[in-house]
Amino acid sequence: MRLAIEESRLARELDLLGAISAEPSPVVTRVVFSEADLQARQFVKDLCREAGLSVREDAVGNTFARWMGSEPELAAVGTGSHIDAIPNAGRFDGTVGVLGGLEAIRALKRSGFEPRRSIELLTFTSEEPTRFGIGCLGSRMLSATLAASAGATLRDTDGLLLDQVRLAAGFTGELATVALPNNYYSAFLELHIEQGPLLEESETDLGIVTAIAAPATFRMEIEGEGGHAGAVLMPNRRDAFLAAAEIALAVESAAKSSGAVDTVATTGVCDIFPRAVNSIPSRARMEIDVRDIDGARRDAVLDRIGQAADQIATRRRVTLQKQILNADPPAQCAPAVINALQLACQKHGATYRLMISRAYHDSLFMSQIVPTGMLFIPCRGGVSHRPDEYSSPSAIAQGALVLAEAMRQLAS
Amino acid sequence: MRLAIEESRLARELDLLGAISAEPSPVVTRVVFSEADLQARQFVKDLCREAGLSVREDAVGNTFARWMGSEPELAAVGTGSHIDAIPNAGRFDGTVGVLGGLEAIRALKRSGFEPRRSIELLTFTSEEPTRFGIGCLGSRMLSATLAASAGATLRDTDGLLLDQVRLAAGFTGELATVALPNNYYSAFLELHIEQGPLLEESETDLGIVTAIAAPATFRMEIEGEGGHAGAVLMPNRRDAFLAAAEIALAVESAAKSSGAVDTVATTGVCDIFPRAVNSIPSRARMEIDVRDIDGARRDAVLDRIGQAADQIATRRRVTLQKQILNADPPAQCAPAVINALQLACQKHGATYRLMISRAYHDSLFMSQIVPTGMLFIPCRGGVSHRPDEYSSPSAIAQGALVLAEAMRQLAS
Repeated sequence: MRLAIEESRLARELDLLGAISAEPSPVVTRVVFSEADLQARQFVKDLCREAGLSVREDAVGNTFARWMGSEPELAAVGTGSHIDAIPNAGRFDGTVGVLGGLEAIRALKRSGFEPRRSIELLTFTSEEPTRFGIGCLGSRMLSATLAASAGATLRDTDGLLLDQVRLAAGFTGELATVALPNNYYSAFLELHIEQGPLLEESETDLGIVTAIAAPATFRMEIEGEGGHAGAVLMPNRRDAFLAAAEIALAVESAAKSSGAVDTVATTGVCDIFPRAVNSIPSRARMEIDVRDIDGARRDAVLDRIGQAADQIATRRRVTLQKQILNADPPAQCAPAVINALQLACQKHGATYRLMISRAYHDSLFMSQIVPTGMLFIPCRGGVSHRPDEYSSPSAIAQGALVLAEAMRQLAS
Repeated sequence: MRLAIEESRLARELDLLGAISAEPSPVVTRVVFSEADLQARQFVKDLCREAGLSVREDAVGNTFARWMGSEPELAAVGTGSHIDAIPNAGRFDGTVGVLGGLEAIRALKRSGFEPRRSIELLTFTSEEPTRFGIGCLGSRMLSATLAASAGATLRDTDGLLLDQVRLAAGFTGELATVALPNNYYSAFLELHIEQGPLLEESETDLGIVTAIAAPATFRMEIEGEGGHAGAVLMPNRRDAFLAAAEIALAVESAAKSSGAVDTVATTGVCDIFPRAVNSIPSRARMEIDVRDIDGARRDAVLDRIGQAADQIATRRRVTLQKQILNADPPAQCAPAVINALQLACQKHGATYRLMISRAYHDSLFMSQIVPTGMLFIPCRGGVSHRPDEYSSPSAIAQGALVLAEAMRQLAS
């Protein structure tokens, strides 16, 4: 039978998954190991079992759903993405790669294809950094980029240990068993929305990723001196928030003056303490995200931000603690996987362009242990991490079809 | 009998009241109508009844404890302050005026004094703006500066109406009955910690306030455009937090360049939405406090801040909504009350200086309807609105003694 995607079914399943959220539709908030996340995991596992896949979960909650190949001892072909979502997010980031990957597998089954290599759908734990402060928790541990011992001692925003939280969520076993053995996968492919405007603007069906930009995260804690907003005169102040405000502007300026448009930097979190209109801020806590497709240039921007922050802190007589939480290398996608995706596009008449991923993905870490590729679907206005994030059912179906075709080649 | 303060009893009562808090000691967090606030109110009412005072509460929770004079038809002498506390505050702001006022009344009773005018202890509702966005809620309504109709429609930080919240807290009756009738008080005195360093630095026992600086509150809501922190290139951003950061620095600069050291301005609240490290801030919400002892100069600074914010918003292509929540006139204290306080200091050998209150107080609004005065007690390092806020038991007792003496003169 012909390889074909059930477009409306896939769209419906994405809707159902999108409705599992800590906040009312259309807002998706699904923080890892929250009730909504656990419910969403169950939804995906049920669909996988219905599709005849055998499901297992590892000690940190990465979920594997396997279609056994005729030569099960061979390294498998993997696909997948994540289902956790930052606060106030949309329905397509991550989920398209999980439910689209599942539909690709179902389509291969319906077509009568019998894979030589096993094909496996992977749902990664905590691609988003919301809860534990670093992104791609599951794939960092699968690729042993994050050691089990270091993972166990991560703390969430409430100060709870990852090791407590994952046990409470029902994921037992030793974290040391999470890292994948050598040759577990022969190839890994991730289907994802672009999260940028290029495909839509150029009216291109799909994007094939050649490299993934390198993310880094800076955390800064500023301590000044509080006091009554009426009583302490301006020359005597050591206002922690004003230092933070200057640092945020320095972050922007460091990115803008890197010499390349590919450098981006964002202060996405700045909490003030005690946060009262009539009280001078005594403390501020910032989280800063810096990315570039060039690792060295990204690191130079990190340096510049750190130096500027030190100068601001000295001038404003506040103390500054700064910590680089992660500074990952950029990833190159594997030519064999890029080729398979190109051939699949050509076979099914999909236009495509080769492109860079500015967002990071679990593929960034999978690429360290397996030949990896990513396939991008256009999303409206390039918008992501917002409730109005949108990709059309037909664009998603086309992505799933090309993914299925590429997996057919790679698993034969 | 001689007029005398029971210093250790007063210190113990302040400790007990300080322990009634939403957070563990030494942190005091007592937001109006919270469980801690209601418990603290009960503690004070019980002490008042033990002292033989008759207690009544009005519809917004202002609490009156009266010692009837021999000519009850005469306007009364009032004293008092507030017991609500901002998050992460200390034990002395407000409470010294309530429990110190009570001890002053008890001392007058113990001395055998029989007042001609009634003497009344007033505990104001919500001097702090934490919950409803404006300070001095109770005294604004007592003085009819805030009309009952406008008060009823105030909303708290959760969007609940004042009218719902106060009913739930047990304060029934019509808000229109809160405004005091003419000639209710002949004089009002507020005992308070200085919340500044002048008395301590000059080794002066007490401060007698001649004027209270004029506070104003600016609220700004900024809306830019969110998006993925990796995917949206710097030139395409409309980051709401960066606009807020620039505005906060403009607030500082407007205060510093007013031409007078008496101008202060503070951005005490700046909330970011969605507040995720990998998401560009789409919205920010700021609360800005501006004060001066000169109303016109304060208003000029407000204007300058508003203009700077508009320019920043235009340049950064974000939308800005700004609202002045309150811009109150400065208050002059009444010469008759100032004189009574000066005589009382002299009689009891307390050194004093005449001074300005940079913090605002319920007296700011009481001064609009009754001859008002304030008496300041030194506090360590000038620190307030912090858990390490401190005034010594002996300094507090001296303040209560002078307050009692002044009330004796004014009620005779």
